[in-house]
Amino acid sequence: QQYDPKQFDSPLVTVDAALFTYHDGVLKVLLVERASHPELGKWGLPGGFIDVHRVADLTQAINGVIEDKTGITAPYLEQLASYGNNQRDKRGWSVTVSYTALMAYQACEVRIATVADAQWVDVEQLPEMTLAFDHMTIIEAGRERLKQKALYSIVPAYALAEEFTFPELQHLHELLIGKPLQKRSFRRRIEQANLLEDTGKFRKDAGRPAILYRLAADAEQYRFVRNLED
Amino acid sequence: QQYDPKQFDSPLVTVDAALFTYHDGVLKVLLVERASHPELGKWGLPGGFIDVHRVADLTQAINGVIEDKTGITAPYLEQLASYGNNQRDKRGWSVTVSYTALMAYQACEVRIATVADAQWVDVEQLPEMTLAFDHMTIIEAGRERLKQKALYSIVPAYALAEEFTFPELQHLHELLIGKPLQKRSFRRRIEQANLLEDTGKFRKDAGRPAILYRLAADAEQYRFVRNLED
Repeated sequence: QQYDPKQFDSPLVTVDAALFTYHDGVLKVLLVERASHPELGKWGLPGGFIDVHRVADLTQAINGVIEDKTGITAPYLEQLASYGNNQRDKRGWSVTVSYTALMAYQACEVRIATVADAQWVDVEQLPEMTLAFDHMTIIEAGRERLKQKALYSIVPAYALAEEFTFPELQHLHELLIGKPLQKRSFRRRIEQANLLEDTGKFRKDAGRPAILYRLAADAEQYRFVRNLED
Repeated sequence: QQYDPKQFDSPLVTVDAALFTYHDGVLKVLLVERASHPELGKWGLPGGFIDVHRVADLTQAINGVIEDKTGITAPYLEQLASYGNNQRDKRGWSVTVSYTALMAYQACEVRIATVADAQWVDVEQLPEMTLAFDHMTIIEAGRERLKQKALYSIVPAYALAEEFTFPELQHLHELLIGKPLQKRSFRRRIEQANLLEDTGKFRKDAGRPAILYRLAADAEQYRFVRNLED
């Protein structure tokens, strides 16, 4: 039996990425200036239609979008949610499969500087912007997901450089959770679970030299039984 | 500017529901026998294409699917994940937005008995079946999601009758988590959070009469800081 998809009206299908990083002490999300209608000139998430002739699955589709803007594959990628209705896109009934991803600022710094239509934006500045489509909703859902990750795992470390200090990690967790964490308790929880490896190196910021760590193997799989606020 | 979606090859889009209930002491999932190609005659999840002329959003689409088979709206519905690739459906590149839902067996018992192609299947029997498409994967993802809900919330109660006993609730949590819970500790955690209302009624099963409870208002919003295994 032959089936002709074009016989029926079908929703448009896109993928979109809420890609976050940590830089200059703030959480940033990658935005792209739209070069075509609808919402021409507005800033929104990197994304696009699924080219069914070029990609085999959703993960390839979203990785292609992220690599196009950043030059690299995101070390942490997670499907967030799908949004679909007859209002979000003027072109018609539309579904987007959205993702949250994390990446070190340093890993894509050179590439992003060369891509004129892409830039990192401090999430605190977003309320002043009017983003394309329902992309603000997707970013908020991404932040909520990352908050849960920050409470129960060390996943946020993927937004840091490969080698990072303990204060950087704690500050990122605090930004995501939205409140301060006790330094001693945070350190003990992470040390007890062996989630970090000491690189043997140090970095001197303002004060005394801080030890540089990297993520231990499979550390992102670990889930705290009690959340880090407890 | 006019945009003609049919100008491009676009993925097929469906919604599918992994709908669970608790009955006869086991966890059951609703399966439907496929009446058309592809996978004709196989059992799979209730689902279907999005009729862009009849529904306004994804939630309406999945509610329509569930109501068509069960006669009612699921009291608990949550988006699970989207699966999309060029292999899962012989008709072409296909994306399904999948949902997990919970419903009391009693609430749809009469309707399901009249729908010839739908039946509840004990999840323990699934390994002996060959389900349509990647629906086994979706069911497994649904069970994993419900396990997390069982560890951190009272959401599983939506798979019980409106009035239920404490032992029923505990057994359902144990089925989902995959191990026994301490009765006293489970009860204390739920009582401390005021998640249940005493209906003032009793039910006599095998032993002494058991108190009948119902969910307190907004109980499904509550999250335990420490999971119920802790």
